[in-house]
Amino acid sequence: ADVIAISDYERLAKDYMPHGIYEYIAGGAGDDITLSRNRSAFDAIGMNKRVLRKFTKGTTEVTLSSDRFNWPMLIAPLAYQSLLHPEGERATVEAANAVNMGMMTSTLSSVPLEDIGSAQQTPKWFQLYMQPDPEHTLDLVRRAENAGYTAIVVTVDAPVSGLRNRQQRAGFSLPPSVVAANLVNYPTSKTQSLSPGQSVLLNGLMADAPDWNDLQWLRENTRLPIWIKGISHPQDAILAAESGCAGIVVSNHGGRTLDGLAASIDLLPPIRNAVQDDFSILLDSGIRRGTDIFKAIALGANGVLIGRPVLNGLAVAGALGVAHSLTLLQQELELAMALTGCETIDDITLDCIY
Amino acid sequence: ADVIAISDYERLAKDYMPHGIYEYIAGGAGDDITLSRNRSAFDAIGMNKRVLRKFTKGTTEVTLSSDRFNWPMLIAPLAYQSLLHPEGERATVEAANAVNMGMMTSTLSSVPLEDIGSAQQTPKWFQLYMQPDPEHTLDLVRRAENAGYTAIVVTVDAPVSGLRNRQQRAGFSLPPSVVAANLVNYPTSKTQSLSPGQSVLLNGLMADAPDWNDLQWLRENTRLPIWIKGISHPQDAILAAESGCAGIVVSNHGGRTLDGLAASIDLLPPIRNAVQDDFSILLDSGIRRGTDIFKAIALGANGVLIGRPVLNGLAVAGALGVAHSLTLLQQELELAMALTGCETIDDITLDCIY
Amino acid sequence: ADVIAISDYERLAKDYMPHGIYEYIAGGAGDDITLSRNRSAFDAIGMNKRVLRKFTKGTTEVTLSSDRFNWPMLIAPLAYQSLLHPEGERATVEAANAVNMGMMTSTLSSVPLEDIGSAQQTPKWFQLYMQPDPEHTLDLVRRAENAGYTAIVVTVDAPVSGLRNRQQRAGFSLPPSVVAANLVNYPTSKTQSLSPGQSVLLNGLMADAPDWNDLQWLRENTRLPIWIKGISHPQDAILAAESGCAGIVVSNHGGRTLDGLAASIDLLPPIRNAVQDDFSILLDSGIRRGTDIFKAIALGANGVLIGRPVLNGLAVAGALGVAHSLTLLQQELELAMALTGCETIDDITLDCIY
Amino acid sequence: ADVIAISDYERLAKDYMPHGIYEYIAGGAGDDITLSRNRSAFDAIGMNKRVLRKFTKGTTEVTLSSDRFNWPMLIAPLAYQSLLHPEGERATVEAANAVNMGMMTSTLSSVPLEDIGSAQQTPKWFQLYMQPDPEHTLDLVRRAENAGYTAIVVTVDAPVSGLRNRQQRAGFSLPPSVVAANLVNYPTSKTQSLSPGQSVLLNGLMADAPDWNDLQWLRENTRLPIWIKGISHPQDAILAAESGCAGIVVSNHGGRTLDGLAASIDLLPPIRNAVQDDFSILLDSGIRRGTDIFKAIALGANGVLIGRPVLNGLAVAGALGVAHSLTLLQQELELAMALTGCETIDDITLDCIY
Ligand SMILES: Cc1cc2nc3c(=O)[nH]c(=O)nc-3n(C[C@H](O)[C@H](O)[C@H](O)COP(=O)(O)O)c2cc1C
Ligand SMILES: Cc1cc2nc3c(=O)[nH]c(=O)nc-3n(C[C@H](O)[C@H](O)[C@H](O)COP(=O)(O)O)c2cc1C
Ligand SMILES: Cc1cc2nc3c(=O)[nH]c(=O)nc-3n(C[C@H](O)[C@H](O)[C@H](O)COP(=O)(O)O)c2cc1C
Ligand SMILES: Cc1cc2nc3c(=O)[nH]c(=O)nc-3n(C[C@H](O)[C@H](O)[C@H](O)COP(=O)(O)O)c2cc1C
Repeated sequence: ADVIAISDYERLAKDYMPHGIYEYIAGGAGDDITLSRNRSAFDAIGMNKRVLRKFTKGTTEVTLSSDRFNWPMLIAPLAYQSLLHPEGERATVEAANAVNMGMMTSTLSSVPLEDIGSAQQTPKWFQLYMQPDPEHTLDLVRRAENAGYTAIVVTVDAPVSGLRNRQQRAGFSLPPSVVAANLVNYPTSKTQSLSPGQSVLLNGLMADAPDWNDLQWLRENTRLPIWIKGISHPQDAILAAESGCAGIVVSNHGGRTLDGLAASIDLLPPIRNAVQDDFSILLDSGIRRGTDIFKAIALGANGVLIGRPVLNGLAVAGALGVAHSLTLLQQELELAMALTGCETIDDITLDCIY
Repeated sequence: ADVIAISDYERLAKDYMPHGIYEYIAGGAGDDITLSRNRSAFDAIGMNKRVLRKFTKGTTEVTLSSDRFNWPMLIAPLAYQSLLHPEGERATVEAANAVNMGMMTSTLSSVPLEDIGSAQQTPKWFQLYMQPDPEHTLDLVRRAENAGYTAIVVTVDAPVSGLRNRQQRAGFSLPPSVVAANLVNYPTSKTQSLSPGQSVLLNGLMADAPDWNDLQWLRENTRLPIWIKGISHPQDAILAAESGCAGIVVSNHGGRTLDGLAASIDLLPPIRNAVQDDFSILLDSGIRRGTDIFKAIALGANGVLIGRPVLNGLAVAGALGVAHSLTLLQQELELAMALTGCETIDDITLDCIY
Repeated sequence: ADVIAISDYERLAKDYMPHGIYEYIAGGAGDDITLSRNRSAFDAIGMNKRVLRKFTKGTTEVTLSSDRFNWPMLIAPLAYQSLLHPEGERATVEAANAVNMGMMTSTLSSVPLEDIGSAQQTPKWFQLYMQPDPEHTLDLVRRAENAGYTAIVVTVDAPVSGLRNRQQRAGFSLPPSVVAANLVNYPTSKTQSLSPGQSVLLNGLMADAPDWNDLQWLRENTRLPIWIKGISHPQDAILAAESGCAGIVVSNHGGRTLDGLAASIDLLPPIRNAVQDDFSILLDSGIRRGTDIFKAIALGANGVLIGRPVLNGLAVAGALGVAHSLTLLQQELELAMALTGCETIDDITLDCIY
Repeated sequence: ADVIAISDYERLAKDYMPHGIYEYIAGGAGDDITLSRNRSAFDAIGMNKRVLRKFTKGTTEVTLSSDRFNWPMLIAPLAYQSLLHPEGERATVEAANAVNMGMMTSTLSSVPLEDIGSAQQTPKWFQLYMQPDPEHTLDLVRRAENAGYTAIVVTVDAPVSGLRNRQQRAGFSLPPSVVAANLVNYPTSKTQSLSPGQSVLLNGLMADAPDWNDLQWLRENTRLPIWIKGISHPQDAILAAESGCAGIVVSNHGGRTLDGLAASIDLLPPIRNAVQDDFSILLDSGIRRGTDIFKAIALGANGVLIGRPVLNGLAVAGALGVAHSLTLLQQELELAMALTGCETIDDITLDCIY
């Protein structure tokens, strides 16, 4: 009776990995302000319930860019899962199959995207970090297409790494045994050369970062639907919609990039208002309860991504831990629907928010 | 001088029962967010006082669906009281008589409703959980009528059990000695049969749950006034009023069903606004002080129910503990009326709220 | 360097008296909600400052019902000061003289009002609790007139005692050596006789409590200006002004009567708005810093009363402790005026509030 | 990996100096309300980020009253730095040179302004406390002009010292070895003579304090641009602009003067609104992160001052500690710009605030 909620895995995970890895996973950027807002914002949202409604056709199914999902939730793209379990992403995909849930594979997976793709029986999407060299980007996309991935999710909110003070303090660095398996064959590309007085960050790294033109180029080079992950401003949501994307992921990267950003869930309503009703929006950052999923959908999301809970489940009990964690969220979502009188995902609307 | 407020009984109760039972009683659903809002919401409400008013006809009497009550408060329906004291509901009813207060008997009482009914000398109401088999529901109603109950209170906010993580963690389960005394003779009815891929919760349990039609049917089958307990949405209050109910209980079930619901007291004003002034509204969830009763009435309730304080008093000192707990609340209510200059329950209006 | 602020006396006072007396003095009513609001409300108020203003005629003087005060603050009426120091009110009046500050003597002083009156060299006002027998009330007023008091302050917010849970828990009761010195010669008057079912509080004590008619009668029976202490509602402020009072004290009795009242300072602005600009308003409850006095004046008070800080100073170091405590407040008020650019009490206006 | 943020220096600094000095530096006035608001206000401000923007001309340069700065931040004027390190201001100026940042030298520096001025290679401004004797004031200005300072910053928010309870409790006083090196040759001027009943503070010290006329006189007596430090009211900002000042520093002196003032950052928007867009505004008080600098600029500041972080760096590791502290802030500011998509300081606008 001890592991009955996501928070139990969070608590336990600490003992299942070295402190450095724990801080790398659990920590946010800077002072963890955004990280903790991600949670307090969900907790502050009230729900409404209706009673005595007829309940005859209950279901949790949704469709997202022509894939059909049993649940309005996917496993988030999460780098380097071999840090947490010898089987790494292989264990996670096993869990995804077991609980019938979609998954996004990260560019930085520690298992090749091909291996993951061939094991996965649920909708599989590929998360893309655009590479300094366009040839490498294109190669990644081709490989994803060939491996049967049905969507490309371009993460755009981390052109440079966030201020990860907690992992710095813990002295975290990637052990040699864990690598970005998809990138091993791409030679490191030359970086910008700087004149004296120029900034490595502002004039070097940032000059290499992708922009809307690069996204346009990408769209012209693949037949897969493209999602943009890491949108937190209504204007960028509009630009994404205009750029022909299939949808966006409203996200602050789990509080790991810029400390001071609002909670993702607080950003959702203005973003939903800025775009058309039929433009698809996923949301992540801070989801730890089935009621959080319910709230996100009520506030305008078509579905959510689950980040750290997957990693904690993986660390504590491998595929089984991931599957159990996700099952808990599924059951809690069902219970929230039952107790509010919502038969389907479409019934979860703004009226359900207090 | 040690037990002078409801909070003292709360503190003591912990030592008068096994941890599992304590968690079952004290806990809320999920993360206790609604449970704690129930308290913080009351504490956040300010009161106004008037001075130097004439004070000649002080009284706390009220009338609710043709029963006359000495106090605007009833003992809430509380299941399985034998968990807390060998005499169970028998002790509680003794206290109700002693302090001249009405009481609702639960469908899930551990003492037969007939025994309670014959002992009770104050207004007695029967709380009904509608049974999967309508015959059983009807039988319960007939038995309540015959035992002299003067109202039926249908609880509608718990069609399925809440996410009771605290009691799960404590490993609580009902001991064999404690049973739902009113239901022992009803055979378990067959449940829905599910096709593969269907959800036990969404397609099974919820398909059995009562709806407005069932309520209509109930009303046609008894001459007793019907109250609906567990309303938390203005639209449902309107539906209840239209359905011919005598009144409603605004309640979030003491925070035990859906975690994330607003505090009951915060839901009261919009619900009071949605219905006619003469439609009766009771309120429960979180009342621990006479000033809380005062606030609920000022915000539009005709009276309140007292839940856990009754159970804690029962556990600590049996009938005497319940009677003392209720007396404390009565005295505190009188004092609040005296210090605000309110002679009668009708004088307690919105003007008394800061 | 250890006793440099009012909070130091608060901290120390605990060790200078038995726990029961400490709880009697420091405690509020019920759950101390109003008590703690009294403090948090002051702390939440922001101040504005102006710079580079000419500063040539600095003074803290004010006039209140024709008495001239060096400081816009008086010692509040505080019962039974012999509880805290063998010299009781005699020590306090010595301090009042030393720091040139007005004082209100309580009906419940443990030293006769005549002794206090003859010792006091600053403006002296008498706080009146109206007695069940009008003859006794009248006698108190005559004695105050004869002893040279220049105003009567009728306290109206405590017709019955508050719910003093903290002092109940500590088992506080007045020791035989400490008496209400002014009342020793008045025989206890008969109380109301109650019929069965009537409430001692609502039908007994409250029927004896004074009302506006009694106040009218009082005004006709003395030539002294009358202030009403314990106003917390704008409508009562209006009634007070219409009744011909010289002024009012906005107060929640230091949080000792009805728990749930707003902080006095939060009640001040609506009350100031409800009455004429030249109607005098004093304020107490929660003042612990010179900046609190400044804020009260900026928000519309003509001056303030100091309660518990006087008692703590008295307990710790007798007349010297009181004088030092009051000097600290005086210096802090001067400093607040200097740093905000306010030369006189009249310069402290709403513009000084952020 | 232990000293990676300003907060680490704050934590360490405690062990690098006697308690009295620590309290003198770290403490605020009164109850530290303003001190803690300075921090909580920054943390409460949310930021917006944009993604996929072109990033080709990144720079942090700004111009302030004709001086060109590599960074929109200066070292604040900080008295008596020899308290913290044997080299005092000499170490600080070394750091300023190393990290290419401007600095204000205090009137109360423990090293003569001439020595500092000749060592400093970045823009150097002189902070002036106007002296009771105008001749001394004028002499200070002449010396600053001769030493190559390019602006005079008149601090106006501390005409008298704040209520420094923390340093009083710690028994802080300046050791004989640390002196106001710039003032040693000015004889103490005569103070106002007071009549009995007059206040040393209100009628003595404050009568000596400078006013707008004195500022006018100063402006006529130097060719250097004059800034006013310590503005916290929009009306005073307007007066400053009208008086011909080059700019102002919005500041509450790090919470060290009047406790109860709003956070500087909360005061900034109304002040920015009150003056012309091209009137220069600096801000200090509570800046501890690069994102704080970013927020201040977004809310209308042209740059910021860094106070206590410089002192803590100095105490822990001399010039190196100061340089490292400032570098951390520089890198964090760059990172905030990169992650929000702001290439230049001018790009940081109100749109960046959530
Ligand atoms: C350890 C870790 C690694 C991550 N790696 C990636 C990644 O490779 N690509 C990506 O787009 N997001 C990555 N994310 C962000 C997640 O996809 C997701 O946005 C975030 O975890 C959601 O917040 P949550 O953890 O609060 O659920 C990572 C997050 C964590 C915690
Ligand atoms: C242990 C326990 C058992 C309960 N059993 C029932 C029940 O059988 N029927 C019902 O309608 N409500 C039941 N309730 C809910 C109460 O009637 C009431 O709504 C709730 O306790 C009020 O909140 P409070 O405990 O904060 O006063 C129960 C509550 C508790 C704590
Ligand atoms: C121990 C104690 C005794 C008091 N006695 C009286 C009293 O006799 N008459 C009265 O009008 N108010 C009395 N008061 C209330 C004070 O006059 C005053 O309203 C209150 O103390 C102000 O709040 P403060 O203590 O926070 O400053 C008493 C307060 C205390 C704490
Ligand atoms: C120890 C100390 C000494 C200071 N000395 C001066 C000074 O001599 N002149 C001045 O204008 N401000 C002085 N200040 C105020 C700073 O210039 C600045 O306004 C303040 O430190 C900014 O807040 P922060 O410390 O939170 O960054 C001093 C501040 C501290 C902490």
